[in-house]
Amino acid sequence: MNFSQTFIPTLREVPGDAVITSHRLMFRAGMIRKLSNGLFTYLPLGLRCFRKVENIIREEMNAAGSLEIKPTVVVPGELWKESGRWDSMGDALLRVKNRLGADFVVSPTAEEVFTSLVRDELSSYRQLPLSLYQINTKYRDEIRPRYGLMRGREFVMKDAYSFHTNEESLDEHYQVQGQAYRRIFKRCGLTVIPVRADSGAMGGSGSEEFMVESEIGDNTLLLCKSCDYAANVEKAECKLDYSPRFSLELAKGAAANTPAIEKIDTPEVKTIDELCVFLKTSANSFIKTLIYKAVNVELDLSAAPGGNNLEKRRASTASGTGTSPAYPEAFFAVAIRGDLDVNEVKLASLLKAAEVSLAADTDVIRITGAPVGFAGPVGLTTVPVIIDQTVTGMNDAVTGALEKDKHYLHAAYGRDFEAWLTADLRTVKAGDRCPACGGELYEKKGNELGHIFKLGRKYTQSMGVSYLDENGKNHIPLMGCYGIGLDRTLASIIEEHHDEAGIVWPMTAAPYHVIIVPIKYQGPVQEASDKLAAELEKLGIEVLLDDRDERAGVKFNDADLLGIPWRIVVGDKNLAGEKPMVELKRRGQTDTKLTPLNETAAEIAESVKKELAELNG
Amino acid sequence: MNFSQTFIPTLREVPGDAVITSHRLMFRAGMIRKLSNGLFTYLPLGLRCFRKVENIIREEMNAAGSLEIKPTVVVPGELWKESGRWDSMGDALLRVKNRLGADFVVSPTAEEVFTSLVRDELSSYRQLPLSLYQINTKYRDEIRPRYGLMRGREFVMKDAYSFHTNEESLDEHYQVQGQAYRRIFKRCGLTVIPVRADSGAMGGSGSEEFMVESEIGDNTLLLCKSCDYAANVEKAECKLDYSPRFSLELAKGAAANTPAIEKIDTPEVKTIDELCVFLKTSANSFIKTLIYKAVNVELDLSAAPGGNNLEKRRASTASGTGTSPAYPEAFFAVAIRGDLDVNEVKLASLLKAAEVSLAADTDVIRITGAPVGFAGPVGLTTVPVIIDQTVTGMNDAVTGALEKDKHYLHAAYGRDFEAWLTADLRTVKAGDRCPACGGELYEKKGNELGHIFKLGRKYTQSMGVSYLDENGKNHIPLMGCYGIGLDRTLASIIEEHHDEAGIVWPMTAAPYHVIIVPIKYQGPVQEASDKLAAELEKLGIEVLLDDRDERAGVKFNDADLLGIPWRIVVGDKNLAGEKPMVELKRRGQTDTKLTPLNETAAEIAESVKKELAELNG
Repeated sequence: MNFSQTFIPTLREVPGDAVITSHRLMFRAGMIRKLSNGLFTYLPLGLRCFRKVENIIREEMNAAGSLEIKPTVVVPGELWKESGRWDSMGDALLRVKNRLGADFVVSPTAEEVFTSLVRDELSSYRQLPLSLYQINTKYRDEIRPRYGLMRGREFVMKDAYSFHTNEESLDEHYQVQGQAYRRIFKRCGLTVIPVRADSGAMGGSGSEEFMVESEIGDNTLLLCKSCDYAANVEKAECKLDYSPRFSLELAKGAAANTPAIEKIDTPEVKTIDELCVFLKTSANSFIKTLIYKAVNVELDLSAAPGGNNLEKRRASTASGTGTSPAYPEAFFAVAIRGDLDVNEVKLASLLKAAEVSLAADTDVIRITGAPVGFAGPVGLTTVPVIIDQTVTGMNDAVTGALEKDKHYLHAAYGRDFEAWLTADLRTVKAGDRCPACGGELYEKKGNELGHIFKLGRKYTQSMGVSYLDENGKNHIPLMGCYGIGLDRTLASIIEEHHDEAGIVWPMTAAPYHVIIVPIKYQGPVQEASDKLAAELEKLGIEVLLDDRDERAGVKFNDADLLGIPWRIVVGDKNLAGEKPMVELKRRGQTDTKLTPLNETAAEIAESVKKELAELNG
Repeated sequence: MNFSQTFIPTLREVPGDAVITSHRLMFRAGMIRKLSNGLFTYLPLGLRCFRKVENIIREEMNAAGSLEIKPTVVVPGELWKESGRWDSMGDALLRVKNRLGADFVVSPTAEEVFTSLVRDELSSYRQLPLSLYQINTKYRDEIRPRYGLMRGREFVMKDAYSFHTNEESLDEHYQVQGQAYRRIFKRCGLTVIPVRADSGAMGGSGSEEFMVESEIGDNTLLLCKSCDYAANVEKAECKLDYSPRFSLELAKGAAANTPAIEKIDTPEVKTIDELCVFLKTSANSFIKTLIYKAVNVELDLSAAPGGNNLEKRRASTASGTGTSPAYPEAFFAVAIRGDLDVNEVKLASLLKAAEVSLAADTDVIRITGAPVGFAGPVGLTTVPVIIDQTVTGMNDAVTGALEKDKHYLHAAYGRDFEAWLTADLRTVKAGDRCPACGGELYEKKGNELGHIFKLGRKYTQSMGVSYLDENGKNHIPLMGCYGIGLDRTLASIIEEHHDEAGIVWPMTAAPYHVIIVPIKYQGPVQEASDKLAAELEKLGIEVLLDDRDERAGVKFNDADLLGIPWRIVVGDKNLAGEKPMVELKRRGQTDTKLTPLNETAAEIAESVKKELAELNG
């Protein structure tokens, strides 16, 4: 392809909102243009790279035995009402009413669509397992889209969904998908951090996120300096730095030598820091107690304090077939060691709640009988008390006394208070110890490129999918889902592969393998350039020939910016010798090398193919 | 690909709403499933065919020098307000408000998006011509989607847009696109009728529709039995069957021997048919006069009767930058020979109106001063009178007298009345004469698969696109657009290529080239089938191997239904002889033929490649 025949509007400057490298470079290299906030147009060069990533993903999905289909982008809202997500998805779901007043959704993901398709087609166990995928446009109505393609509103996602008769079959395909994802990222030249949500034991409710390190990442990851442990902070655990006493007997025994609990005056002292100063001690001697409000709690609270008085109802979906009955709203006290933070994702997961958040001051006052700052587990009976495991190890602690300007000294778990539930709720942080090997954990910011997930029967149950087994008995199939964002993956390749001058493409994602730069596109130089391009193309190599009437410096800068792996400079001087030569340069390296013109095509072709084979191998 | 490893849910029955062949067969062959009214999911087999059509289109666009880009599907409403189509597009435009209250559109077409991209990038004449295209999801909120993929709500369209400095350049690319379209349809095995809107003279405001004949077609076409003239009824012309007298002098002369105009009583006579009986004459002696209401008229009416009193205003777009000022509403009388019908598309085009429709009875009474049925051009001064050309040839006509139960005899154009405008407004119909050769015209129903169109400066002007010429002078570029519907094209292939048993694919669009049907997939039959499939795939042939445990009859029926060009039956008996044989059958032919197993792959591969080359050639 000749540069003058395509459309690559390179730029020196970029708009102010392009703050990350991939956004800046894709803009400058003429790969994308902004249509509106969070909406981008791929120009020809960008689309070539996009298609390469798309093809890698498609090849690996096909190899994994998943079958490509193409549902629509605009889908009936009715399906989302059936699954319950019409209500639970919130404002990120772009809803449309058509001219007849019917509800539609511009798909952000397609569990419902695939589940409904399979529901209509599935009758016998013989049809399972079945794995289907699409590579299609998605929309998420981000309130603040930014970072270019990294967090756009419209994007393309590969999403696969698999259906199984049993856990073994689901686990087998889940593993196959996990391997396919590793191959996809390797082929794209990407270093990903696979982050598991649990031990990954077969049949477990598994989930694995594929992260790339990124300064502007949405996710905080905890990684071990000594082993390959990696976890999202939302789920990270750590080695215990206390002695847990899960049995009340054990706890009571540990408190045997603790002085009796004592209420003291703590005038004008509210924060843990102030208390530390006041009592001349450190934060890990305190029990911090927070009041949380949880929404749509599916955990059974009938035996919890106050649980009997809570309203419980089926989520109000328009179709009337929502998810399980839930408590629309409930409050909880959460106690944790004073130096730690409560992880709200862990808490929501424990409560099976749609959302948890700190209670309003008025609620705190109503529940604790005291102003904010004096909550504590001792004597608190108005709401269920949940304690983090750390609290089970505390047999001589300071805590709020449910009275203004009062705290307790010498509070001991098991002796002075008990808990309704005990769980791991701490937010693990850098410096904590690895749960696998005890090594030191450190933090990284990461962006999620892919996610594989065992859904179980969440959708097949709510949407009424079933099949008959060998004996004619009805069963609900298990389901897995496997997503990967194409635009993000492409942008991440640039984040990982660039230098000050521009992009440095891995061969597999490069828009062209070779750029030929004639110093001046005329006479023998033009002839040699055209011939070389034709030879390379005949060998299956993709060539961009910079035939523009521009200064050599401009062309060299653009070649660096575009990041095409091989640059071949064709100039009068090198051609003029007895043996006509051209100059080769590998993008990302500084040295150049002269090769005989008539050997160049074969040499480059071999090198390109070798590199492709290595990445794809 | 083994049948058992893919997902081809074939059916004997189809739902009642599948009334056309392509819809029925795509459903039965497991190519598509309905997600909702007008929304379909392509299953793996259907998607393979879809991709083949897509690739043919992409190859031809690339060969035509158009460059592929990928804008988003959801686009800012702001752009549509700039062009004025936010108001003029009506209810078929699917509008969405996002969570922040901003307007968006799910693209039904992309003139605005491409124009805005070029507006931002274009500075110099050196960047032109530029032709860009996308193959992307579109949405049209059809009030009554039907006929499967033929008229769905969501569909995929290839739409190209080109930008030029002058008419010659636009015309050149328009011709190249027209050739590309002819190649696309030929490669798909489709017989299309190219329908031109005008003479196609260079620089003319050209437009060409590519139609396929279809019983359920949206369009009525007029075709000539003697030459290749083809026109959409909306624009069709015919050879004159009267003597036009465009000059008033000529008209007056022709009326010299006509008796003086005479008002007669025609009690209880209202329709032309009743008048014919009453006066014992035929419809072509009457001047029929209809009162029309037109909306958003851009034609200058300042010199027309009553034109000075009409309100004129800029179309009310939210952005305030709508199209040209227009008359929001205006009325017209249209006179035409009594045996003919007024073509409202021609009328709207003459008036540059968004819409024309027959006026309400109350408006007719107000304008003509008489009940409906007595309108006529003689003495009508309240609204502009527009006459069809046929009326210029009438020098002794009957017409309404603007009074209840009164008509005029001996009305003559030029003597008894004049016209504000004269134009060709008749609806041409079967039996009329070809304007090119005088042959007889006949009608066909057709569906539009593609449309190429010279837009001129419609969008570049309203959206403010400009470039500098060699002398630094500003100009507005010309624009062309070129669309083709992929789903419709695919469905049309089936409409043209099927028999009672199922689809009969042309090789280029077939999901697989060969289906291998082992009578029973076991033992030597299985071995021979697997080997044959592997050999064929090695030769680049796409093979579906029916490894299902089904009766031979079921497999044969499915093979016919799926329509894969070559069927190879592998059975025990034919394999057992001294020279193992298999049975070949070409879909659509009845005879079968035995060939030696070890020669089959080479023979079939050669035949497939020959056929592909012929269609693609």
